[in-house]
This record gives sequence, C-alpha cells and structure tokens, in this order.
Amino acid sequence: MFRSWRFALALLLTVAAHPVMAASPPADHPFAKHFLALQLSEKDPARQSLVLSVANNMLKQYGPDSIAIEVVTFGPGIRLLYADSPLRKRVESLVEQGVRFDVCENTLDSVQRKTGKTPALDPHTIKVPAGVARLMELSDQGYTLVRP
Amino acid sequence: MFRSWRFALALLLTVAAHPVMAASPPADHPFAKHFLALQLSEKDPARQSLVLSVANNMLKQYGPDSIAIEVVTFGPGIRLLYADSPLRKRVESLVEQGVRFDVCENTLDSVQRKTGKTPALDPHTIKVPAGVARLMELSDQGYTLVRP
Amino acid sequence: MFRSWRFALALLLTVAAHPVMAASPPADHPFAKHFLALQLSEKDPARQSLVLSVANNMLKQYGPDSIAIEVVTFGPGIRLLYADSPLRKRVESLVEQGVRFDVCENTLDSVQRKTGKTPALDPHTIKVPAGVARLMELSDQGYTLVRP
Repeated sequence: MFRSWRFALALLLTVAAHPVMAASPPADHPFAKHFLALQLSEKDPARQSLVLSVANNMLKQYGPDSIAIEVVTFGPGIRLLYADSPLRKRVESLVEQGVRFDVCENTLDSVQRKTGKTPALDPHTIKVPAGVARLMELSDQGYTLVRP
Repeated sequence: MFRSWRFALALLLTVAAHPVMAASPPADHPFAKHFLALQLSEKDPARQSLVLSVANNMLKQYGPDSIAIEVVTFGPGIRLLYADSPLRKRVESLVEQGVRFDVCENTLDSVQRKTGKTPALDPHTIKVPAGVARLMELSDQGYTLVRP
Repeated sequence: MFRSWRFALALLLTVAAHPVMAASPPADHPFAKHFLALQLSEKDPARQSLVLSVANNMLKQYGPDSIAIEVVTFGPGIRLLYADSPLRKRVESLVEQGVRFDVCENTLDSVQRKTGKTPALDPHTIKVPAGVARLMELSDQGYTLVRP
C-alpha cells in the first residue's frame, strides 16, 4: 500500500499544482471569491460602454471586496484607455473600486508604427506585453473570461 | 505518516471542492455529458440567428439528452427573447428540446429606465439577476462559454 | 481508515480524470505548455486580420514549440480559409509555424444548401464536424478559448 500511497500523493500534488486550480486571490483582492476577466477588442463606443456597465453591475452584485475584475484591452479596444477617451470618468470610477485596466503593448507598438506616435493613456492603465497572453494567464489563475 | 495523510486529505477535499470540478448535470439534464453556455449580447439579427443555429447543431450532434445548453442574453442581445421577436418560433422549438434561455434583469432595468416600460418577453424566458454573473456560475459548474 | 483511504483514492482518481485536467500536449506540439484556441465567426476583414495578428504575436511571445494554437472558424468566419481569401499568405505562414486552422462542416453544408456549391478551401484547412463542438473539446483539453 505504501507505494500506491506515494503514487496517490504524487498524483494529488500534480493535480493540486495544475494551473486551473490556482484561483488564489490576487494581492489587491485578498478576500475575492469571484474572478472575472473582461475582454475588450472593439472600438464601438456602445460595446466599450457595455464592458464598463458589466464591471459596475458585478461590483454591485458581489461587492468590491468579493470580486476581482480585470479589463484586458487589445486591438481597437485600447481606445477605451486613451487619455482623451469620452468614457474616462467611468473608467476612473471603476479603478477607485479596484478594477484593473490593461492595455496590450503589441497593439501600442502597432499604433506607433502606423501613426508615428504613441497614444497618451489614462495614467491608471497597466501595460501588459500581450492582451491575449494576459487572458491566458488569468484563465490559468481561475478567472472566467467574458467578452461582453 | 498520519499527519501527512490528513494534510493530503485536506488538500484533496480542497481540490475536490473547487468549482471547476463541479460539472454535475443539472436536474433537467441528468444524463448530460456536455455543457455549453452560449452568450448573446448583440442585437444584430444574423448574430442572433447564428446562436440559434449553433444550439440546434449541438443538439443534433450530441443528442438532446447528452448536452445541457443555456443561452444567456444581456445588453442588446435580450431582444432575441422579446415576445415579438421574429426568431421566437426557433427559440420555442429549442425550448421544447431542453435549451434554457436567460434574460439579464440588469438590462431589463436599464431598458425600463430609458423607455419607461418593461418589454414583453417570451414566457419561456428565465430571468437572472445579471447575465455575466450567470456565465460565471455556469463556468464554475463546468460549462464551456462560447459567444458565437 | 482503510475505507476512507479507498474513498479518498476513488475521489482522487475522479478528480484526476476530469477533462479540465487533461491539457496533455497534442502530438504535433509535444513540448507545448500553453494552449490557445482562437475563435473566428465573423466576416469582417479587420476582425479576421486581428485573429492572425494575435496568433503571430503569441508565437513570438512563447516560441512556436511552447504554444499550441488552433484557429476554429465557423459561420461567416470560414471565409478566412477560402482558397481566394486575401489573407491566405498570412494563414499559410502561420500553418508553417504549426498553427492549425479548422473549418466547420455544418457551416460548409449550409453554404452548399444556399449557393448550390461548396467553396474551394485552402488545402491546409482541417474540417471539423462542428466548430463549437471543437471549441468544447479543446476547452476540455485545457485550451483557453479566446474570440479576438
């Protein structure tokens, strides 16, 4: 039995180490029980507004301490985080309630190449190397990915 | 060894209790082996029709007993479930085959505020407090989330 | 204790057997540690181009050996894989780097019924019975599903 026990323990540790299991709360949300990654990759203002409404509704439903929300923008979706975005006040209100907003550096590089300048961003924006890579990381950490 | 055994058991129970594990069939689909949540948050009629086609194709491929399908509508997507929707007959045919259709109450409240009236809905519609919260619950229960 | 041990082992094996655990690398990517399924169900050329950019960026970020990428097309998204697609060269460059491209046979049947002919496809395309069923399989195998 000892051998099977060791085998079982090894198996157990493998299972426990699997990324899908992780779902440990991020440092800024130590009491979070719900984990939501919202993808934004469209420039349509109504779609951008919907993403913000969803974040706001989830904060209300679960309470800001119980849910960790990260909005990941890439492609045309990064416009939400431009310094001159018409939605900037709503973004900042959500930042104050603990929502994180990411911008994809691959997209920024591409805009830089096409236009010759880097867009000014809301200073609360977090730069990530690639938006989709960030979504994969968050999924591995137990976040549910939703693209409103 | 006993202490490590207890530790392992605790770990095991933690792992086993993780929501990703759940995937127990819902009461209305006791034999389901496949679990699909279809998100609809657009008003485009072609997109709405595609969601219904996907549900229909999945019922054909797996058989209505083997798959549990829930269509979750929010934002402009709730129009699919208006009583006067041009797609109502297709919705009801899917309801008869066990597909569940949810409407987001946050969206209904928002429509009520803007228009002064609550839209009449297909009577088979299930109201959920928030569409995205429902998607998170379904994901925790082992459903795959797809937004066609 | 023996009975609880057997119970625990049974539980362990159940947990270990759960599809979410699978994530074993596919035969064509034996060293992959990252698994990405990209959904394409729109005909918008900018959206199709974004899917290819995402695949390319992920290959650069992780390296072609470390990531398995599968692009699953259905509905209007299958046009990406038509033989006369303006994006064909970019598709083939990604195929050479190990990206798989699937087309949904349900959609092909539907196009055949409406137009009377089956569209000519890029010869590297892999036919799957249903795009969404393929996404469910990939999710069960540990792939992260993203719809750029």
